[in-house]
Formats: sequence, C-alpha cells, structure tokens
Amino acid sequence: MSSMTQNSALSNDKLLLFFPKDPDTEWIKKTTTQYPGLEVRWINSVKEDGTFVNEKDLPADYWEDTTLLFVDYLPPPAELISNVRFVQLAASGADAWLGHPTYLRKETIFSNASGLYSPQIAEWVIGTWLMNQRQFLKYQNQGDRGPGPFSNVESSYKLRMGILGYGSIGRQCARIANAMGMEIYAYTRSERKTPESRKDNTYRQFCVPGTGDPEGIIPSRWFHGASKEDINTFLAQDLDILVISLPLTKDTENVISYKQFEILRKKRTFVSNVARGRHVDSQALIEALEKGQIRGAALDVTDPEPLPKEHPLWNAPNVYITPHISWITKDVWNGGLQLLETNLERLNNGEPCINYLTRSSDT
Amino acid sequence: MSSMTQNSALSNDKLLLFFPKDPDTEWIKKTTTQYPGLEVRWINSVKEDGTFVNEKDLPADYWEDTTLLFVDYLPPPAELISNVRFVQLAASGADAWLGHPTYLRKETIFSNASGLYSPQIAEWVIGTWLMNQRQFLKYQNQGDRGPGPFSNVESSYKLRMGILGYGSIGRQCARIANAMGMEIYAYTRSERKTPESRKDNTYRQFCVPGTGDPEGIIPSRWFHGASKEDINTFLAQDLDILVISLPLTKDTENVISYKQFEILRKKRTFVSNVARGRHVDSQALIEALEKGQIRGAALDVTDPEPLPKEHPLWNAPNVYITPHISWITKDVWNGGLQLLETNLERLNNGEPCINYLTRSSDT
Repeated sequence: MSSMTQNSALSNDKLLLFFPKDPDTEWIKKTTTQYPGLEVRWINSVKEDGTFVNEKDLPADYWEDTTLLFVDYLPPPAELISNVRFVQLAASGADAWLGHPTYLRKETIFSNASGLYSPQIAEWVIGTWLMNQRQFLKYQNQGDRGPGPFSNVESSYKLRMGILGYGSIGRQCARIANAMGMEIYAYTRSERKTPESRKDNTYRQFCVPGTGDPEGIIPSRWFHGASKEDINTFLAQDLDILVISLPLTKDTENVISYKQFEILRKKRTFVSNVARGRHVDSQALIEALEKGQIRGAALDVTDPEPLPKEHPLWNAPNVYITPHISWITKDVWNGGLQLLETNLERLNNGEPCINYLTRSSDT
Repeated sequence: MSSMTQNSALSNDKLLLFFPKDPDTEWIKKTTTQYPGLEVRWINSVKEDGTFVNEKDLPADYWEDTTLLFVDYLPPPAELISNVRFVQLAASGADAWLGHPTYLRKETIFSNASGLYSPQIAEWVIGTWLMNQRQFLKYQNQGDRGPGPFSNVESSYKLRMGILGYGSIGRQCARIANAMGMEIYAYTRSERKTPESRKDNTYRQFCVPGTGDPEGIIPSRWFHGASKEDINTFLAQDLDILVISLPLTKDTENVISYKQFEILRKKRTFVSNVARGRHVDSQALIEALEKGQIRGAALDVTDPEPLPKEHPLWNAPNVYITPHISWITKDVWNGGLQLLETNLERLNNGEPCINYLTRSSDT
C-alpha cells in the first residue's frame, strides 16, 4: 500500500467537492483507487428544501484540511480554505473571486470551466434572438389568419451579429449565426492581427469537439481595444444583435450604459447578455427599452441578481429574462467532473492544469 | 422599333404577375425596356381589406392572352390560362397544381421557387425547436428563481435530427443544426450512393449563397426509399427531432400517421412540419400529443389549412402552430422577382429555365 501511495503526488491531498449534486460513490471510488492516499469528500451544496448549505455549518476540518477544491460559483470564506492549493471552478467566470484572498495568492492554481457550457449558452442566444426577431409569440396559435401574413419580419440571413468578447461562448454563437448566413463582427480586448493570435486562447486545451471557432476564421471584421472609445466604435457598426460574452472585470463593468444605447439606437440593435448582469447599466437598459432605442433584449443575467420581484426591469417592453440558467442542462456536471479528472491527472503528473487562470482579464 | 422587337423572343408574349404585392412600376419599365414588345400586367392578388381577388372578377383578356405567368400559390382555373407557355411559381411546392390541366400539359414550362425561402424556413425550424427543447416559455420572466435551476433541460449538442426530404430547406436546417453540434440523418426517395448523387438537385442552378448543404456532406447517415417500410426504418433511428420537408405527392400524403407515431414514441421525437399539412394525419397527431408519444410539435402547415378556430389541434398539448408564415419576410418577393428575371432571360435566349419542374415527385 505504501509503495502505491508513493506513486501518487496526490497521496497527501484532500479533495472537497461542494456543488449542487448528490455524491456519486462510483466516481469517488474510481478517483480514490486511481490516487491512493487521496481523500475525497463530496457534499451537495443545496439542501433537499432547495436552500443553500451554509459553509460554516459544515465541520471545520472539511474545509481547513482541504487542499483541492471543486466548487460551482460562489467562493467559500478565505479562512475556511487556507490550505487549498488548487481550485477547480465549475463556472466560466471567476468574477465572484475577484479580491478574494485565496484568489490573490498566486501560488494557488485556479482553473475555470471556460468552454464547457458554450453549446447550450449559444443555443440560448440564438433561440431567444429568433423568438424575438421572428415574433414567435405574436404568431403563436393565432387562429386561422395570424396577425396578417405580409409582415415586417426579417430573416437573419445577411444580418450582422457583433460579439463583445470572443471566447468560447462568443465563438459558438458565431458558428451557429454563420450557418444562418449572418455576418460576424468580433471584439476582443487585445489586437488579433495574425492567424495565430486569432485562435481561441480561452480554449487552451479544453474544447467541446465540433463547436466554436477555434481558429478564429469566422468574423469578417475584428475590433479590439480596452477603452470606451474602442468599444463605442465597435457598437457603431450597424449591428442587428450584440452578444455580450465578456468576463466581468473592473474595466468591463457597466460597459453598456446610456451613451452606448444612444449608439445602438441607429440599428435598434437587439442586446443579448449571457455574461454578467453588471456589464449593463440596468437603469439605462430599462430606458432604452422603454424608448424603443433597441428592438429588445434577452438577459440570462441581471444586476442585481437574482432580480427582485419588484424590479422595474421585469416590466420593460420587449425583454426576455431567465434566472441565469442558460448553462444548465440535465448532464451539466459531467463536463465539470471530467475537467476535474483531467486536472487531477495533470497535478499528479506535475503538468500545467488546463483552463488555469493567469489572473489577467483579457478575452 | 420593329428591328428591336425582332431581337426579343418575348416580343409577342404577355406576362401577368398575380401575387400579393402592389405593382412596381420601375420593375415593369425595366422589364419592358429589356424585352421590347413584351406586355406586362401586374395585379395585387390581395385587396386592401385583406380578402383575395377572385380571378374571374378580372377582365378575361388579362388571363386568356397571358403566355407568361407569375403566381404565388393557388392556380387560376385552367380555362383562364389556356395560352400560358411558362409559369413561374413563387412557391416551393407545386402540390396545389397536381391534376391541374395546365400542369398536365407538358409543353408548359413550370418553374418553382425551391431554394428561395430556405434561410427563413430553417430559422423557423431551429427557433421553434429551441423554444420547446429549452423551455423558453416556462423560464420566461419567472421572478427571482425560475422553475428551479437543476432542470431536465437538454442541450441540442449530440442530439439527432432526422430530415425527411433533403432539399434546400432540409439542407439549411442541417447546416444550422450541424453548427449546434447535432447529428444529421437524411432521407431521400432515391438512393444517393455517390458524392455526385448527394448534391442538391433541387438547387439546380438557384441557391442562396452560403446556405444549405449543396454538396450533401453533412448527414452522417443517409436513408432512402419510396415505401412505408423504408420511411418507418428511418423514423426508428432514435431521432430527437424529425423535420418534414418533403414535396406533397400522392405517395407522401399522410406519411406520418398512427403507426409512425408509435415508432417515434421511443425517443418522444419532436415533429416539425414546414412542408404541407397533409403529410401528417391530424387526428393521429392530436392523439400522439395527448398521449405524450412525442415531446411536442411545431407546425407551420396544417390539415385543413387554414385551420378552423374550433379545430381540436389548437388545444393539443405542446403544439406550436403558425398560419403558413415561416417563408414570409418583409423582402420575400425580391427573390421571386429575381428568379422570374433570370428565367425570362433564359426563355429569351432559348435556354432551359432554372428550377424547372420535370413533374417527377422525387426529392
């Protein structure tokens, strides 16, 4: 037994899985067999009544001893995870960790789930766009005539999609929209002049096979920059739909506000946000919808989130809102666990983890 | 003038345009200038009050003298168009003409609009599929929690689309679904063994650039046959969605009925019909929806059509119905008029028309 233990660089590690799924004893058995000496604890972070487990209600040694951590979105308090050397996020965005002492400690390796959820999130973007653009609800079960056949409906063919943040989600939106005959304009923070630079660096090594635009060849134009002016130039490109698929950083908070809706007014650009609610100034969005500056909006994320029942955004015209569910499917955790498995193997072999975060904010 | 007239093979022709759009005097001027001697009449087939113009209310010589005819869907009575030598349909399907004396007269050239509307019809198929599959209506504006985040929703990635009739509409559905990571199974009446045979013969020479699957390389499996057994074999392939995009002929009427819904039950296949209502037995469909044999249906076409207000199909569960509008966009007639222009030029040059119908029923 001790000789086997020496074969694993994880033999002194304690892995805690804390996310909304019941423990999978087969998975635990497989993992502890593969890494003798590794201790695995798995706790469903949501109780049967639907409320969240409070981290502090769990025995302190569940946390303090933990060296490897798998969590979905919200970070546990830093004092509980002082021994953590590796964090596998099941979320694509690490914004909830910004300023967190564990995140600031560079020797702790963080890996995110970028790339895992792009198929379903892109479906949400395309589906909600078509529902609005093709007026599916207006035409639904309208009796024998409908609202009149000679309508003002537009096909998406030859319309223009602007993608703010061309990571794995943006690239999968581009792939589907391109198949529909749309023109794609991409925006990234850094310039992407060469073919090499246009490759998807958020993929690193993880990618859902057959999705996205790994080579970066779909956009017919590519914009870049870090300033408001750069972004405003991009927004002025007569976009029919703007997809927000940026990471949230200090620079990208409220990136779409009053001035930007003024720019989007020309084409009455549809706004789809699948990144973070705080990218968009909610009050400016409500006014843009009420004034008809934009033709509509689809929001899987809001500011605040969850959006309180009495919030005026619910009553704005032409807005479709879901409670941050575009990434969720019935087998959504399979990908996260596979990613964790891959990274455990890499930790064990002394190799760099995939999807590790350099703590830079570039898209 | 007479010497110019001799340059045009259309100098003794009379072209009648009878479809739901006001005359475009610029278009008429351009066309009569190009073909000296050609007479052009253009009548909006829908009155201002939304009712249809009765053909017999028009002066008889509008019809009898007509040699070239542009119509949208329903054929005029044969006795009115006894001199017609060319009919340009603005519809993709010629089923309304089956058995019509003018259609049976092989020397009259018929050309259909196959290929013209595939971008918007495929968007309708993909959008209504996503709306059902991703439960967009259930999740819409549901307050701060929605119906519970840990849902049974499925992404389309790796799901299977079966396409019954792999013409230009089916091929554009395949293109988008393939970009979403779906697997495509195609069905055609004739066998398509060779790469050459898999090319889109419904395109002939017309194709919306950058759409569809002109080479026939997207399907991972290809089925064929003319018998019920052949179709049943196709339906038994664990399809998540069945797209009906066949021409309507005697052989394809009621092609989906009780037996077929029994087969689709295993996967609870979603059924999307953008071809003709009479492909599906309405009573069998209602029962399949009521029993939950299929997960839902999206119907742009119905039997009967228009569907009377009191028809029980309106109240079947999980059905989305629109009144044959999936092809309509605000610039929908531009393509038809361009097609007509191309075919006038070909008639003038003595060349074969594009999209001409051989009066065979193969897809």
